[in-house]
Amino acid sequence: MVTTSSAAALRGDPYDANCATRRILDRIGDRWTVLVVGVLGDGEARFSEIRRRVDGVSQKMLTQTLRGLERDGLVRRTVHPTVPVRVEYALTEAGRTLLEPLRALQKWSIEHLGDVSASQNAYDHAE
Amino acid sequence: MVTTSSAAALRGDPYDANCATRRILDRIGDRWTVLVVGVLGDGEARFSEIRRRVDGVSQKMLTQTLRGLERDGLVRRTVHPTVPVRVEYALTEAGRTLLEPLRALQKWSIEHLGDVSASQNAYDHAE
Repeated sequence: MVTTSSAAALRGDPYDANCATRRILDRIGDRWTVLVVGVLGDGEARFSEIRRRVDGVSQKMLTQTLRGLERDGLVRRTVHPTVPVRVEYALTEAGRTLLEPLRALQKWSIEHLGDVSASQNAYDHAE
Repeated sequence: MVTTSSAAALRGDPYDANCATRRILDRIGDRWTVLVVGVLGDGEARFSEIRRRVDGVSQKMLTQTLRGLERDGLVRRTVHPTVPVRVEYALTEAGRTLLEPLRALQKWSIEHLGDVSASQNAYDHAE
């Protein structure tokens, strides 16, 4: 017998509170995910390089973001057995499919920055 | 004179910590925004209707999400002077431009649900 919640989980319906797509939405819509996936879209990179390019991300937050993406199968972490070891992060094939939707989000943010800021100003100064 | 931070704000660069596009990314990538904008994509709706369709959203969170979207100029709140008053929420023109990128995110979540879940399982059971 299929319960309501597992049926929702299989169907993939983010409007159902029990569906795992909600947690996936949380991951992929996250500010840091958008920026980190964007950096890795240019090719594999080390932790320090990603951190440099994503201005203002803390070590802890970047570690957490990369670990989450790795767990989701979207980023691959490769440890090269050099001395000292070199660790590289790269998008997996599944991770690459995220590039297009996330770039669209980023593009939207940039294109609508002026309108959104103007609207916020008007809202905040309305009586 | 244009300072570094205001230059970033004008250019629109989410990789710069000072740029307002980051806060916009936070709003539009938010789980509740994705779901609420999706509902309003079908037409204007009352608070109670949105709340019913977005399973599990709290009154407080939905209020906060709608107010944020209204402040950003993406949702319009109309108070009809009936007795009792009827309040309807609808996407503005700018809000409608969000439909496509947000639907792409939702679609991605649904399509990759199986792969992501399998990867999480494998990750959690690796030694």
